[in-house]
Amino acid sequence: MEKGQMLYEGKAKRLYSTNEEGILWLEYKDSATAFNGEKKATIEGKGQLNNLITSLLFERLKEEGIDSHFIEKLSDHEQLVRHVEIIPIEVVVRNTAAGTLAKRIGLKEGLRLKHTIVEWYYKDDDLGDPLINEDHISLLGLAEPEELTLLKEKALEINRVLTQFFQQIEVDLIDFKLEFGRDKDGSILLADEISPDTCRLWDSKTKQKLDKDVFRRDLGSLTDAYQTVFTRLGGVSS
Amino acid sequence: MEKGQMLYEGKAKRLYSTNEEGILWLEYKDSATAFNGEKKATIEGKGQLNNLITSLLFERLKEEGIDSHFIEKLSDHEQLVRHVEIIPIEVVVRNTAAGTLAKRIGLKEGLRLKHTIVEWYYKDDDLGDPLINEDHISLLGLAEPEELTLLKEKALEINRVLTQFFQQIEVDLIDFKLEFGRDKDGSILLADEISPDTCRLWDSKTKQKLDKDVFRRDLGSLTDAYQTVFTRLGGVSS
Repeated sequence: MEKGQMLYEGKAKRLYSTNEEGILWLEYKDSATAFNGEKKATIEGKGQLNNLITSLLFERLKEEGIDSHFIEKLSDHEQLVRHVEIIPIEVVVRNTAAGTLAKRIGLKEGLRLKHTIVEWYYKDDDLGDPLINEDHISLLGLAEPEELTLLKEKALEINRVLTQFFQQIEVDLIDFKLEFGRDKDGSILLADEISPDTCRLWDSKTKQKLDKDVFRRDLGSLTDAYQTVFTRLGGVSS
Repeated sequence: MEKGQMLYEGKAKRLYSTNEEGILWLEYKDSATAFNGEKKATIEGKGQLNNLITSLLFERLKEEGIDSHFIEKLSDHEQLVRHVEIIPIEVVVRNTAAGTLAKRIGLKEGLRLKHTIVEWYYKDDDLGDPLINEDHISLLGLAEPEELTLLKEKALEINRVLTQFFQQIEVDLIDFKLEFGRDKDGSILLADEISPDTCRLWDSKTKQKLDKDVFRRDLGSLTDAYQTVFTRLGGVSS
């Protein structure tokens, strides 16, 4: 497989074409951003840890019958993925109150929710990724109602599986963000990444934060936190 | 009917008990507030106009088979209403992009929407009345899923009727906010008010604003704008 030209550079990843149709080369960057890009830093080793953790979680999800765009890990900071057209909706799943949910509806951070919550956010940096509802999605033509039903089902199923994974390593899955894409046949596939950049993960006993909040709130070494997650997941750095 | 003790004072109205069970006495105030109470003023005649317009619209809605808490107008600034427990959800219906919708999803104010949008806002001043979804509503225990289905149906039906009313007097119904309540049997009833305080109303030809945006944006005399709406609706001030 040969790496081709860069197709897209996001805040945390670069996407390249390959010599094979429908397959892309994904490179994880060492940049950390928060608050819609207002806070930025370069953190050595972060891209690698996110790539390793995402690869491991996508593999575990596949074993549970949940397919994603992930094909294989190429190196510590690179992976091959299937080409999908990303649906510009961030699907957020929440088990415990934290972050914007706690602020929005006035809940104490750490409150275990009576039931899991799914939220749609419009993936648009200029607008600050606002919360939207099904009517907004329909108006903007982001997805069909049947697709939203499927996205919600998939998100809840992924939540069940991931919650169990993390329970086994004594980590609470507080909330997380998923992105999905459509392949050339229009089938919906889990995409993007699942890492401490996109999940809130707390140590089950100490409630220590093991995710990007360490960077957002200046709580210590981000790579130490991410390394803890990777090591507990059974990952061995090469 | 005798007016009893004050039960509640809101930003725009005061609610009193009466000597008859299940019937309340509603008094419209002359206070104008915007931006969650940050901007305030007393505007003589505003309470009266809102009472007159609301009474007229609730009567017209009743003729179309849409019941509300409204019983009768008592005076220029007072009405009798049925006692309901207000559901703390602001139901916003939008036909044209304006206000927070235009900002949220990046639409130009005045853009006619391809389809009507319904939004739920959590009626909580301390939280700034945030946009919420069905999962938040369920979590907070604000309403049952079947109630939300009914609220949306009622809101869209009211939109069809009001849009026609206003078309006849050459006013565009841009968007509006409704509140609903439960009576002692748990039946859902339209409540609160329908006035230029709770609707965006633009002159169909000139697009001149005839609603609270005149106050929010300092566009001239608020009572002149509200009087225009009342006069066009066929109202005659006593």
